[in-house]
Order: sequence, then structure tokens, then C-alpha cells
Amino acid sequence: MALIVQKYGGTSVGDVERIRGVAERVKRYVDEGHEVVVVVSAMSGETNRLVSMGRDIAGSRGSAREMDVLTASGEQVTVSLLSLGLLSIGVQAKSFLADQIAIKTDDVHGKARIQEIDTKALRAALDAGCVPVVAGFQGVNDLGEITTLGRGGSDTSAVALAAALKADECEICTDVDGVYTTDPRIVESARRLTHITFEEMLELASLGSKVLHPRSVEFAGRYRVPLRVMSTFQDGPGTLITTEKDDMEQPLVSGIAHAIDEAKITIAGVPDLPGIASKILGPIGAANIEVDMILQNTGADGLTDFTFTVKRQDYDAAQKILQAISRDINAREISGDNEIAKVSIVGVGMRSHAGVATKMFDCLASESINIQMISTSEIKISVVIAERYVELAVRALHNVFELQKLPE
Amino acid sequence: MALIVQKYGGTSVGDVERIRGVAERVKRYVDEGHEVVVVVSAMSGETNRLVSMGRDIAGSRGSAREMDVLTASGEQVTVSLLSLGLLSIGVQAKSFLADQIAIKTDDVHGKARIQEIDTKALRAALDAGCVPVVAGFQGVNDLGEITTLGRGGSDTSAVALAAALKADECEICTDVDGVYTTDPRIVESARRLTHITFEEMLELASLGSKVLHPRSVEFAGRYRVPLRVMSTFQDGPGTLITTEKDDMEQPLVSGIAHAIDEAKITIAGVPDLPGIASKILGPIGAANIEVDMILQNTGADGLTDFTFTVKRQDYDAAQKILQAISRDINAREISGDNEIAKVSIVGVGMRSHAGVATKMFDCLASESINIQMISTSEIKISVVIAERYVELAVRALHNVFELQKLPE
Repeated sequence: MALIVQKYGGTSVGDVERIRGVAERVKRYVDEGHEVVVVVSAMSGETNRLVSMGRDIAGSRGSAREMDVLTASGEQVTVSLLSLGLLSIGVQAKSFLADQIAIKTDDVHGKARIQEIDTKALRAALDAGCVPVVAGFQGVNDLGEITTLGRGGSDTSAVALAAALKADECEICTDVDGVYTTDPRIVESARRLTHITFEEMLELASLGSKVLHPRSVEFAGRYRVPLRVMSTFQDGPGTLITTEKDDMEQPLVSGIAHAIDEAKITIAGVPDLPGIASKILGPIGAANIEVDMILQNTGADGLTDFTFTVKRQDYDAAQKILQAISRDINAREISGDNEIAKVSIVGVGMRSHAGVATKMFDCLASESINIQMISTSEIKISVVIAERYVELAVRALHNVFELQKLPE
Repeated sequence: MALIVQKYGGTSVGDVERIRGVAERVKRYVDEGHEVVVVVSAMSGETNRLVSMGRDIAGSRGSAREMDVLTASGEQVTVSLLSLGLLSIGVQAKSFLADQIAIKTDDVHGKARIQEIDTKALRAALDAGCVPVVAGFQGVNDLGEITTLGRGGSDTSAVALAAALKADECEICTDVDGVYTTDPRIVESARRLTHITFEEMLELASLGSKVLHPRSVEFAGRYRVPLRVMSTFQDGPGTLITTEKDDMEQPLVSGIAHAIDEAKITIAGVPDLPGIASKILGPIGAANIEVDMILQNTGADGLTDFTFTVKRQDYDAAQKILQAISRDINAREISGDNEIAKVSIVGVGMRSHAGVATKMFDCLASESINIQMISTSEIKISVVIAERYVELAVRALHNVFELQKLPE
């Protein structure tokens, strides 16, 4: 018997029929003798519908407090519907909203951070043989006001609950059956990973694998909550995300991620003086534009080229800002490219193996793919290439690192 | 400067455009220097949509606790949207859910009764120059669970808040511009009443005038909260509902109500013995069928005829129950009619004037309308007639009692 926190996303509870299916799935765990706490998102599309009504009325700068009251209603609908579904098939269940537990957060409406969870009510429900069905995505601040955790918030709710309850496992039940070595739509031989480390998953999530929100992975890693990504709709063990173990096979590369929603901007020929980076990136940050990769090459002439990437949707805005300050920073030229892609290989095995980078660059060269930018961390290497080569690059790398093969 | 509680029903907040209109309307009151507390219902159709999803999953006997969590989400959406709307036109506003105030109720889920309202938070908001926007229909029990007040619950929320805050007036803003002498769709010359007493309104509401829920009228009467029914969509004073005053003109008859959703059942020739009424009505009540009028005529032969009316939708079920017990109660015959209508005249003036009943019966006789049942109270007379005569009866009575004329 284990204590398991299960999170079901918007697609899994997208209509009445699917909610019935989730109830049946939860029942199987209960029948096997497990204690189960369920966390649900709003029905798919519902949060967007609510946000768009709110924006219709108040524009995009409406009160964050009221937007939170508005969007939190979506999870209120699904916790009650799922509880009704569980009760109707004979499973004791009870819905809990964030303030009823309480899931205490700071008061940054729209992207609040969980500070504390009181597990008393949940523990009492579990002890009474009842399945608590908890509203994801929402919290409550010290004033008793509703807060929300931002995109991917329900994953974070589930992980935080699992940590607070010292659950044996946190299952993220979704519409894919696990984490893959790469996008199966690009590489047919992509293989579901049986397990992966938090660090690797964090890199993959940050690099464009949409399965889990990076924040929830980080949270799970910090509190060492075993996290499992699995399918709501079909049986299977999914992918277990845990801390690195000595006896774990450590493949050189665990997975390949790609992202095509970026753009790069180069400021060429600026004086190589202290403070130039903040002069360039300060106004970008002030405009709430997120910067991903940053590269600076120093030339011999006392001038430097400065390149960074932003989300493609921010490309025009970022260029305008730089044009406005180009005289101020004495730039020779500002150029950009919004038809780029980022391809990354991730693996804890890289730490102890040299030559991974070389193998990656050789592979891309042999396909005549030019590398525009490189950025590395201890367990990943990312390159920026022209967008039109992205599938070719991913397939070639998947093949070179033999990801289709099960590790020995 | 007055303290006014305004309640907006589902039609008034039926879409984003209408919510904007409500915000503008509230702003006018604020600009005039009034303190305003707003109570809103869910968007029209939303509560039904939620209930139908809940029933889809759990049938009609789903957990009442969870149905309350589900349906209460509807008001959560409208309080936040209206707050966003107010803020966006420069009116300070803040949404409040039942548990944030708190609106304490008993724990009869689905038809909870308000026990206590803590006005501290609302008073603080008002003192800060803010419009509190309160979720109607919902409450919270001692366990911190969401309860709902049943149909018409938002009217009751508004009246209870007005009583607790000692508001100067409670305005029920709706899609009609007041209470009429009778249904204007039947009588063209029907006139909007400038005022009416709680007792009269209570009778009219119970008798089929759909403007206000009887419970809210009763509540307003008990706590002497001046209640005003008025239009959300057009200007005008509406109808003021207050306690009877000496200097009020007291027309003989204030209004005429009619209802065509009833049916009558007659049990003929049952022994006239003590306990016979409960033998007949006991099983009816046990089946959750509401009985309206009850008549019993005693004959000379020790037998009695027993007639009562039920909602038309319960007609078949009630007949089946009586057939099943007819031998037990020794009934000679059970018959019924589901093509009946109830027409009622209501007026506090009846108390002090004889002859009102005679005038009513004469009027109906002169139109050759047969009266099947009669029931009276201090301030109303109801008759049951064949449904096909209902418009004719209402028009004739409206004319005879000269309701189209303004009282002197």
C-alpha cells in the first residue's frame, strides 16, 4: 500500500465522459489498497475561455486579484464533477479548494508561489478512507484571497502536495504515455524512457519538451518527490523521474529537445567596455521580454558582437527597443533572424564523458547543417541552427547517439 | 448619500457586454455619492449547465455537497468579471465569495439558510471607498464547506446583506421594470405599481408572479428591508416594496396573479373520519410532491370529498400514489384534471372591505366562468378555473377592480 498523489490535466478531464474515465482509473488504485490524493486542472480550454472573458472586459491589465478569482473557478468545476463521479461508483471522495486545505502562497496574483500546505484535513480524509480531490493551480494568501500559480500550476500543486504528505509517488497523468528520447512525430524510432533524472527532465522541460512544467520538476527535485509521467487513457508504467542513483544506467545522452519558437538578434560592433551587456539587456528586461541564450564574442579591434535569443513573439518588440538605443550603445549594426531553431541534447552521462560535444558537432557537419550559436551546461548542449534543418538535425542526432536502443 | 445593496440576476450579467452595462450602472450610483454593495447571480443558463453536467455524471442523487461546490463556481465567475469591469472604468471594487465575508449558513446543502453575516470585511471595503461585489446564492457552513441557498437564492443573499448592513434599500435589478398589477402580456392596460406591501408581494410571488422569490420577500419583510424591483436595462423608479404605512393609499386589490402549472385531484366518497387527510396527503408528501390548495367538503352521508392541487409535473405521480392507497382509504372514486388554472386577487385593502369576494365571483359569473375551487387568506382570494378561461378571467378582473387606474 502506497500513498500516491495523482494529477490529471485539462485533457484528461475535458468532458463528462473523460471525468468518468478518470474516476474509474482512481478506483482501480483504491481497490488495490492505495491511498490516493487527486489533483485536477480545469477542463481543457476552460481557463483560456475565462481569461478571454476577463480580457474582453478589462483588457490585458485587469486586476490580477480578480483574474485569479475568475480562473480559479475552472478547477472548482472539475473537483466537484470528479468527486461526484467517484461517489457515483462507490468511492468515498471529497473536493477541496485551496482555502479549505489551506495551500498558502505569497500574494503575487497570477504567479503565486506555494509557501506552506496544511495536511491535516487531507490526512483526516485519507484516514477516513476518502479520496481527497484537490483543486490544482490555486492557492490562498494570508488575507484569504484566491491566488493562482500560473501556467503549469496544477503540476506544481500536485508535487507540493506530494512533498507535504510525504507521498510515495506523484503521478502526472496526461495524454502522452511518458517522456520520449525525442519528439516521436519527428523520429519514428523515438523510445519512451523508463526513467530519467530530475536534472535531465528539467533541461528537457526548459528546452521545449511540453510534458511537464519546469517549475514542478524543480520542486520535485528539491523535495525528492518521485515523479511519474504516464497516460490517463492507456495502461503502462510511464516514465519515472527520480534522483540520480549510482546503479542507474547512465546513457551519454538521454533525450533530444527542440524548440522553434525563438529568434536571435545580433548587435554587431559595439565597444567592448564593462557594462555593455546590461546597457543592451536592461531595456529588454524592462519590457518584460525574456532572454534565453546570450553570446558575446570579443574581436581584436576593441569591438564586440553581442547575440541573444528571445521568444519569436517578442522579436519585433526587442528589435525596436535596440534600434532606439543603438546610437547610445554605439552599435555598428543590429540584425536578426526569426527563422531559427534550437536543438539540445541532454544527459547526465555527459558529466563524465568527454567527446559528446564533438560527436554532436560532427554529426551536424556531416549533414551540412551550420551551427549559429552554441551554449552548454553540465548536462546539456544546445545549438541554434536554421529552422528548416530542425527535423533533419534531430533525426541525425537521435541516430548517432543510438537513442532508439534500450540502454544495457 | 445612502447605503444601497443592488442585486443583478443572471440575465443582467448574461454576457460580457451586459456586465459592462451593469458596471456603468453601478458607477452612476457611486458618482452620485452612494455607498453600493453589489450581489450577482451566475450568468443566465450557467447554473443549469453546471447542474446538467453534475447530473450527467452522478444522476439526480449526486452528493449535495459536491453539487454546491460545482454550482457556486458560476457566481465566482460573475463577481470577478464585474469587479474587473468596475475597475476598468475607474470604480474601486473587490469581489467577495461567501466564505470570505463570511455568509454563514446551516449545512443543508442545496437549500441552506443564512444564519449570520459578518459585515466587517464589507464595512472595511466600503469605508475604503470600494464597491464590494458579493457572490449571491452561496454560503459557507461551520466546516468551511460551500453551501447554496437554492433557487432564487441570490435575491435572498442581497436581502440578508442589506439587513446585516442596515442598508437604506435593497434593489433587485432585473429584466422587468417593476411589479405590475397583472401580467402585461395578458392585459395591455396592466400598470406598474409604484409600491406594494411585503405581504402583498409575498402572495403575488407565491401565486406565480416570477419577479421575486418568495423567500427573499419574506426575509425582507421580517427584517424590514425596503426592497425595490427595477430594470437593469432602463431607467425608472421600479416598484418599492415596504411595510404598510397609514398614509399609504390602500387599493382594494393591488394585483392579479395567475398560474397554469397546476393540476387538481379529487378523492370522492371517503369516510369522514379523523386522520383521513393525513392518510391521503402523507404518502404524497413522502414522495416529495408539494401540495398547494386543499379543500374538503363534508356531505350528509358521512362521506367526504377531498380535493387538492399539485404542480402539473407531479400530477401523474400523485395519481399513481392515490390509486395504490385507494382501497386502504375506502375511496369511491379518484379523479383529476390537469387543465386548470389558478387566478388570485391580492390586496391589503381587502382586510377592511367586505364585498371583494362577491365582486370577484360576480365578475367571473358574468363571463360564464365556472369556479371549481376557492381558497382565501386575509389579503388574497384564489380560484381554480378551467385553463382555457385564464386570460378572460384575468382581463375581466383587472377591469372590474379598475387596476389600470392610478389610485387617488
